[in-house]
Amino acid sequence: MATDDLSDLNALIEMMAKLPGLGPRSARRAVLHLIKKRDTQMQPLSRMLTHVAETARACLNCGNISTLEVCSICASEKRANGQICVVEEVSDLWAMERSGMFGGRYHVLGGTLSPLDDIGPEALRMPRLKDRITSEAVQEVILALNATVDGQTTAHYIAGELAHTGVAMTTLAQGVPIGGELDYLDDGTISAALSARKEMPR
Amino acid sequence: MATDDLSDLNALIEMMAKLPGLGPRSARRAVLHLIKKRDTQMQPLSRMLTHVAETARACLNCGNISTLEVCSICASEKRANGQICVVEEVSDLWAMERSGMFGGRYHVLGGTLSPLDDIGPEALRMPRLKDRITSEAVQEVILALNATVDGQTTAHYIAGELAHTGVAMTTLAQGVPIGGELDYLDDGTISAALSARKEMPR
Repeated sequence: MATDDLSDLNALIEMMAKLPGLGPRSARRAVLHLIKKRDTQMQPLSRMLTHVAETARACLNCGNISTLEVCSICASEKRANGQICVVEEVSDLWAMERSGMFGGRYHVLGGTLSPLDDIGPEALRMPRLKDRITSEAVQEVILALNATVDGQTTAHYIAGELAHTGVAMTTLAQGVPIGGELDYLDDGTISAALSARKEMPR
Repeated sequence: MATDDLSDLNALIEMMAKLPGLGPRSARRAVLHLIKKRDTQMQPLSRMLTHVAETARACLNCGNISTLEVCSICASEKRANGQICVVEEVSDLWAMERSGMFGGRYHVLGGTLSPLDDIGPEALRMPRLKDRITSEAVQEVILALNATVDGQTTAHYIAGELAHTGVAMTTLAQGVPIGGELDYLDDGTISAALSARKEMPR
């Protein structure tokens, strides 16, 4: 593989191997697969990748990925229901959208507070969130951060920062996931589910 | 995700999900990762993908993937040692090259004989292999096909086709892989290793 005419191929394999979920071995397989399907898969993929690399950007309002300056969720009047759901990453926003249960808008922090990594409130788009609470007449902020230490710390920080605005603040319920078996759940989840137990409907 | 400005993103995710080893979920992660690293990873990857899609082709002589008409292995006089190693796929050629133990040239069949799938001797580049035996003064053909039923059937077919040329024909040894534990090996491998047992060096 140290031959000259393969250096581009090797460079491509190395780049593919940097993708999450792929390693050197699966990157080789993926590249060979693509070259075999050059017309039906490789060329469409390279064109679309180039196109998205040129056009995808963060929505100026909420931080969602969009090909427009303001994403379609922020642009839609239907989504202006007075609710903002605060999430860590765009992937969390997509997960919420897949559930199809949320009709409001989002605010993507782009991470969690991390003084050691120099990630402060500005990096998390906090000033913009405060502006939006007045400009979009928000009544409820749903803090849908991950149930990790970092996520919950950040949620508490945001709750403190927004306390003076008088906006209602909620978080996602914690408990047993749908389909979850108690035997396979960690102690923390069982404790949380027990503390937050609800009366059975009669 | 049904919003208009995301259709390109979704198309890209669908294309990535078709790669071997990736599914819808890991394709989403990979695309988000790329968009986050637009300048350092996404743009170089899209450029290299376009470049390779335009330049990669099958070597006219052996079927290896190359950016030249004749791959560097076929072009190298050093590799003309009278040996041709016949492999099923380019990935097998790469695996042989990684071992660094083979100094001859290759012949990539591009699959195995499969009458049901309409893969006959011509599709496997057999005529070209016969030509090469004379034109490259080949003394030994190493049949390095996979140790599967299809691979071995194809190996026997090739051996029959080349019998009249008088060229020496060998196959890879079968046995216990290096580092292999007997307890985890299948019966077929153990049987093959036992039949092909060798005297201990003294």
